[in-house]
Amino acid sequence: MSQVKGYAARSADSDLSPITFERRQPRADDVSIQIDYCGVCHTDLHFAHDDWGITQFPVVPGHEIIGRVTAVGSAVTIFKEGDIVGVGCMVDSCRTCPACEGGLEQFCLNGMTPTYNGEDRHDGSITFGGYSDSIVVSEHFVVKVPSALNPAMAAPLLCAGITTYSPLRHYGVKPGHKVGVVGMGGLGHMGVKFAKALGAEVTLFTRSSHKVDEARKQGADHVVVSTDDAQMEATAEHLDFILDTVPVQHDLNPYLNTLRYDGIHIMVGLLEPVDPPLQAGALLMKRRVLAGSLIGGMPETQEVLDFCAEHGIECDVEMLDIKNINEAYERMQRGDVKYRFVIDMDTLKAA
Amino acid sequence: MSQVKGYAARSADSDLSPITFERRQPRADDVSIQIDYCGVCHTDLHFAHDDWGITQFPVVPGHEIIGRVTAVGSAVTIFKEGDIVGVGCMVDSCRTCPACEGGLEQFCLNGMTPTYNGEDRHDGSITFGGYSDSIVVSEHFVVKVPSALNPAMAAPLLCAGITTYSPLRHYGVKPGHKVGVVGMGGLGHMGVKFAKALGAEVTLFTRSSHKVDEARKQGADHVVVSTDDAQMEATAEHLDFILDTVPVQHDLNPYLNTLRYDGIHIMVGLLEPVDPPLQAGALLMKRRVLAGSLIGGMPETQEVLDFCAEHGIECDVEMLDIKNINEAYERMQRGDVKYRFVIDMDTLKAA
Repeated sequence: MSQVKGYAARSADSDLSPITFERRQPRADDVSIQIDYCGVCHTDLHFAHDDWGITQFPVVPGHEIIGRVTAVGSAVTIFKEGDIVGVGCMVDSCRTCPACEGGLEQFCLNGMTPTYNGEDRHDGSITFGGYSDSIVVSEHFVVKVPSALNPAMAAPLLCAGITTYSPLRHYGVKPGHKVGVVGMGGLGHMGVKFAKALGAEVTLFTRSSHKVDEARKQGADHVVVSTDDAQMEATAEHLDFILDTVPVQHDLNPYLNTLRYDGIHIMVGLLEPVDPPLQAGALLMKRRVLAGSLIGGMPETQEVLDFCAEHGIECDVEMLDIKNINEAYERMQRGDVKYRFVIDMDTLKAA
Repeated sequence: MSQVKGYAARSADSDLSPITFERRQPRADDVSIQIDYCGVCHTDLHFAHDDWGITQFPVVPGHEIIGRVTAVGSAVTIFKEGDIVGVGCMVDSCRTCPACEGGLEQFCLNGMTPTYNGEDRHDGSITFGGYSDSIVVSEHFVVKVPSALNPAMAAPLLCAGITTYSPLRHYGVKPGHKVGVVGMGGLGHMGVKFAKALGAEVTLFTRSSHKVDEARKQGADHVVVSTDDAQMEATAEHLDFILDTVPVQHDLNPYLNTLRYDGIHIMVGLLEPVDPPLQAGALLMKRRVLAGSLIGGMPETQEVLDFCAEHGIECDVEMLDIKNINEAYERMQRGDVKYRFVIDMDTLKAA
């Protein structure tokens, strides 16, 4: 085991604070990584606050990790010391089930191992995330960061990026398609960039008319204020896809009605029961589809980094000193971030 | 106009009774059809009882029509006098929008014309359905009944059949797939036959253990009693598709959990709000899909008849004298029919 410095929540009520903890020794297929940047995801906050009742304290959050390779195990074939690499939401899976063999490790039939608050499938230890100075990960769950990408801005691609990119690719968004994006946070603003880069005409839905200018700046071709019934009605039966990034309960029905026949409403944020109730007739009468999507598999996680390098796509980030992480959580809860906090892990040295 | 004999509901509270009404004169592209058989759909009952508040009385229901051609207009190219033909849920559409051009007339952007209780798009008259001795329909909305099919048993293919066949084809059900069918009524029993004929392994879900033998007789490889939690749990993450034919509110969540990742739950019966609420997490965590489907377009309606002829598939029907239609409605409401009533329209002569 090796001693690692990080930031942890020790109970649902406590602020995050410095911690020193032990990482497992590297195995033959492991890559050891010194962490340079870590994005801050809303999921981190849910785990720190134990919102889902499954947190094992202390928890060291962080699953949007960018760093450099400091050592590789004897069986590692892809990476070498000095490589700039990324680690996302998973650090292991069974690797033998049909999902794993199909490059969809997030759906591993034996359960993937999350980057933090998970259980190592070899020694049973609890995994700790990227709010720390280093991490040890099997090379299968490490991706290369293309040199064209700014590493700090690449961090959120490992969760916010892949979460929005994967469904657009899975459902084949291409030029000629009309895509609606609901919500303009960390996920939504990436959804707009990806849909545009894939050639689609993009409509951004926002609840606030004061976000219209900002939405256009993000690349949206059209902006619809979703609280304005007339604007929603004018968009009826118009879209091929909706990418719905809203993580709290909201009425899906007005959005379904903006889809043409065969349109697909993809949810990437909502984990709660659908309320107000879904109108089944809105699906039946137009053969519409309500779909969910969850991050992406490892091949696609590499793909999104390469895609961003090729298309010059970056996440809009606000850099953070780790000692301000608790204030950042409060701001996230108010929606006060454009559009993703990324911790400069150098600041951990002084913490 | 020509005088036609039929059966109509004259108000939401009245029984159906004989009526004489006028049909429009045939146009150049019209086929005149003497009706031999008409299937009885639950939708007929909803319209007769004005359950959806949109019925125009008197209403002559019936959209599972089999008959013989008695005359054709000058522009008719496909049909000739004496042909055995079918008419389903639609009798017209705009024919120029992308949906119509794609053979998906049920999603006509200008609104398809339903076989009854609809408005003729040329003269504004109200359409009357197949509980009658004859009908006049544009040849585009008429299908050929293959000689291998028993015409009486073919009638329900025009609604119950196409409704269950279309989504299985749309989503590409094939050998190796595992398909669950929820409900074993007029639609469900056809769903089992089609899924089997397409090569799938079929699991039928039923709420009553006393239906298990009958479900196996219908061809189901497995029968799961959905009220038995242990049986449902044993089916978890197992199926590729669910064909859900239940037309009333029911809990979708236990069925979603029987789908593997990327599994698709297709609703063909439910038009009401989903209650109990849909668990969005069940879609997101496994990239599952909740879909709706509505009858099928004209090319696919011809296809289902040809498919049934080729595979020896028939609907299980109970023949009905039209004077017993009101008693049949009562029995349908109790679920007391195996599996579809078909009216022998010869009985109309004596009515």
